[in-house]
Amino acid sequence: MARRTSRRQAGGRAKGALHQLPWRQVRNRFPPVDILSADQIEHIHNSSLQVLEDLGMEVMGESARRLLKEAGADVDDATMRVRFDRAMVMEHIAKAPSAFTIHSRNPERDVVFGGNHVVVTAVSSTPNCSDLDRGRRPGSYDDFCDLLRLSQSLNVIHYYAGYPVEPQDLPVPTRHLDCYIAFITLTDRAWRTYSLGGDRCRDGIAMNKIARQIGDDEMRAKPGLMTLINTNSPLRLDGPMSEGLIEMARAGQGVAITPFTLCGAMAPATLAGALTQQNAEALAALALVQLVNPGNPVMYGGFTSNVDMKSGAPAFGTPEYVKATLAGGQLARRYGIPFRTSNVNASNAPDAQGAYESGMSLWAAILAHGNMIHHGAGWLEGGLVSSFEKMVIDAEMIQMMFETLEPLEVSDDAIGLDAMREVGPGGHFFGAQHTLERYETAFYAPMLSDWRNFETWSEAGSPDAAQRANRIWKQLLETYEEPALDPAIREELDAYVARRKEEGGAEDA
Amino acid sequence: MARRTSRRQAGGRAKGALHQLPWRQVRNRFPPVDILSADQIEHIHNSSLQVLEDLGMEVMGESARRLLKEAGADVDDATMRVRFDRAMVMEHIAKAPSAFTIHSRNPERDVVFGGNHVVVTAVSSTPNCSDLDRGRRPGSYDDFCDLLRLSQSLNVIHYYAGYPVEPQDLPVPTRHLDCYIAFITLTDRAWRTYSLGGDRCRDGIAMNKIARQIGDDEMRAKPGLMTLINTNSPLRLDGPMSEGLIEMARAGQGVAITPFTLCGAMAPATLAGALTQQNAEALAALALVQLVNPGNPVMYGGFTSNVDMKSGAPAFGTPEYVKATLAGGQLARRYGIPFRTSNVNASNAPDAQGAYESGMSLWAAILAHGNMIHHGAGWLEGGLVSSFEKMVIDAEMIQMMFETLEPLEVSDDAIGLDAMREVGPGGHFFGAQHTLERYETAFYAPMLSDWRNFETWSEAGSPDAAQRANRIWKQLLETYEEPALDPAIREELDAYVARRKEEGGAEDA
Repeated sequence: MARRTSRRQAGGRAKGALHQLPWRQVRNRFPPVDILSADQIEHIHNSSLQVLEDLGMEVMGESARRLLKEAGADVDDATMRVRFDRAMVMEHIAKAPSAFTIHSRNPERDVVFGGNHVVVTAVSSTPNCSDLDRGRRPGSYDDFCDLLRLSQSLNVIHYYAGYPVEPQDLPVPTRHLDCYIAFITLTDRAWRTYSLGGDRCRDGIAMNKIARQIGDDEMRAKPGLMTLINTNSPLRLDGPMSEGLIEMARAGQGVAITPFTLCGAMAPATLAGALTQQNAEALAALALVQLVNPGNPVMYGGFTSNVDMKSGAPAFGTPEYVKATLAGGQLARRYGIPFRTSNVNASNAPDAQGAYESGMSLWAAILAHGNMIHHGAGWLEGGLVSSFEKMVIDAEMIQMMFETLEPLEVSDDAIGLDAMREVGPGGHFFGAQHTLERYETAFYAPMLSDWRNFETWSEAGSPDAAQRANRIWKQLLETYEEPALDPAIREELDAYVARRKEEGGAEDA
Repeated sequence: MARRTSRRQAGGRAKGALHQLPWRQVRNRFPPVDILSADQIEHIHNSSLQVLEDLGMEVMGESARRLLKEAGADVDDATMRVRFDRAMVMEHIAKAPSAFTIHSRNPERDVVFGGNHVVVTAVSSTPNCSDLDRGRRPGSYDDFCDLLRLSQSLNVIHYYAGYPVEPQDLPVPTRHLDCYIAFITLTDRAWRTYSLGGDRCRDGIAMNKIARQIGDDEMRAKPGLMTLINTNSPLRLDGPMSEGLIEMARAGQGVAITPFTLCGAMAPATLAGALTQQNAEALAALALVQLVNPGNPVMYGGFTSNVDMKSGAPAFGTPEYVKATLAGGQLARRYGIPFRTSNVNASNAPDAQGAYESGMSLWAAILAHGNMIHHGAGWLEGGLVSSFEKMVIDAEMIQMMFETLEPLEVSDDAIGLDAMREVGPGGHFFGAQHTLERYETAFYAPMLSDWRNFETWSEAGSPDAAQRANRIWKQLLETYEEPALDPAIREELDAYVARRKEEGGAEDA
């Protein structure tokens, strides 16, 4: 028994237990990497303002057009075209805060967006999911809940920026109610509403207030939600999205704007063109948020990538994607607005391609000083699939990145000249006092990586990373525990959902 | 037929042909990432000089000790301990050039080390090799030659910094002769000698001169070889390595010094300690090169990583590895000496782990401004195996990195406001003139990545990245062509090898 205890101490854990870093706020200590000169950034900035002045945006929501007209924009209701004066745009953009907090029902899980903070989210908005045992299938509510349980069990996931898979087996008008209650009961992280019209936002706000037992004022002072607004590139903001944007800004909740500017499809076939268009669309929507509610929390989203030249299919984690992300970060910093990035790839399998494309995306996010890494864990196939195995692989990659961002201690004590003296030329440090004092916590201990020698690994059946990830997600689901929630709150939430279902759910989209 | 031609033009290639970037010198346009402050770098610098003064190095080669004694070092021949005065070390270090060229028999393949140049090498010095068909096996000369043919076929491989696998079926004293002639005849890239004593270096120099048809003076003025000197950490330089170092420096050939400082094994269990020891060992050996031949081409090598806490096995591509590489780059820049890095991982398979660990190593190499990325393609299992599939996977990853380093063009023409005007809100850019003009070359076209949709990919047998890489290396070997070489040179080389084999090959180690 004594021997077992000492082995456990040396390894720092019981056999079979998984290594995870603790849940923590993460700071990006790397300098951001600028790939464009200040002149080039101004060139893109000015060109995008010219786009907004000359071409404008098609704004399909009536209330949005009315608000923009009142603010002095040139609005043509017949064509829905809105042209923006550059001074007006910049005046409103200047009101955006450089950092803000989104609050969770568990205050320990509050997340800060801005500065050098890094927030990682689970994959979202995929229609399908897959795992090695059951293959690829349309998303169901069971899968949705399992992906919530799995990501809740992964300490690197800070936040839910959407449904980890679309529960296609639930009716559309009430689906959001089932999803929101799952966010609240199965996890203790902050989450987001879907901006498909105002109803889904209002329900989200109501349920978030119940979960946190707060009123309108506190909800406004301490926002608990953020929504994601995709402009309909090129140069279009659709009706439901603009309704959601207005609803959320009125309630003081976060709004992340992300144009989906694929070079060669919904944007010019050049990075400079796509970035200009991304910037124009983002600035227009960001200005709209600020004129609804000056100072409202917002994020500048970059999602520029390229298409496959052969098929027109979107590609991710490409060299173009990396450069667009780095330049996007420079633009966001130009405006002092927190930057949303993603961890994306176009692989069909949780294999080497999935890992190297994700690796490119992740490094781009970190070097661009992305404040939110959306789709942080689990995304495959350019967003068509949430993979249980990829979620574990991504979690390991993100843990490694987080640990890489931790400072390197340089001190006489850390350097350990005495240890070198003790060991001498040709010796080894395994038994040195300096080593023994640090052994347990000296290095990052992986969750997924397998460092056994080839013989031992072969005897264990030569499991590749995806097969090991398969075992890990099952283990995490087996040991998952639902976070505590006051039964009275649960009752109130159930009652709200029941009433809203009776009313028919969302009506406006 | 017209349709087929036009489709081929749109895709930019014939069906089945592989996409590769052209062979080219690569410049690193990213700023280097500094993770240590100038004070912290000085702390490590001063501590390492203190190590050299107080502890010194065990220098096992007699000629090396003699040279160091003549230069004023404190030498104890009985214990082989050499203690270095810090002013003497820094005086010699200051003579190292900040950049140099290693010349190939094909002048188009000359490679520059230093500045913001990036040189990528094939994997080297592994005892085994593997592929998906034949599994893992001890390296043979057939494998050695196939790995040369494969890497010669990959445009991202600039240089051979060692044997791509150890041909264990060849007798040791003459093995280097067969390997050198293969470097010269099967490839047109520059290569290196093994510094196991002076004989292997002398043979390399002789054969390099024959291959390039040059004499001693030109060989010295335009070096054609670089050797790799691993100090025997901690704090030991063995006899054969020091003989090789002296031989190569006397002939004016490149010498890359790389201490192998594994935290917790051959170095303290802290990054600061391992970096201090790495720096001490590197400075001592670099000073030795410079005192043999002031101004001799040298590289500062960083290979600090950590061990697995459980087994003591080396780990690579870890957070510790990334930080050590970034700090190592800062130290190399501190001395103005080109920096050697590596593309390494500890995976047993060419799977997601192999890719994400390599991805961490590669990004570290680029952000540290590594001038040589050693083991650039093909390394697995912490260096115990050269994998044919991993060589292709790494080549794709490196191509992506190279393309990421290409500048992003920002101009009115690239931005294309006219295209946005032409397309308008809600349209698409597939048929826009701006797109058609750029379509063929707009984006990076992958060699390995599979962007087909899931259905098409499934119908093709759901090949993962490793399986596709398997097909690619076979295709590359099938289409491989031996680079032209004057038959008279070949004859001269054969005669040299025959004579040296008759003499028994290398005698001194």
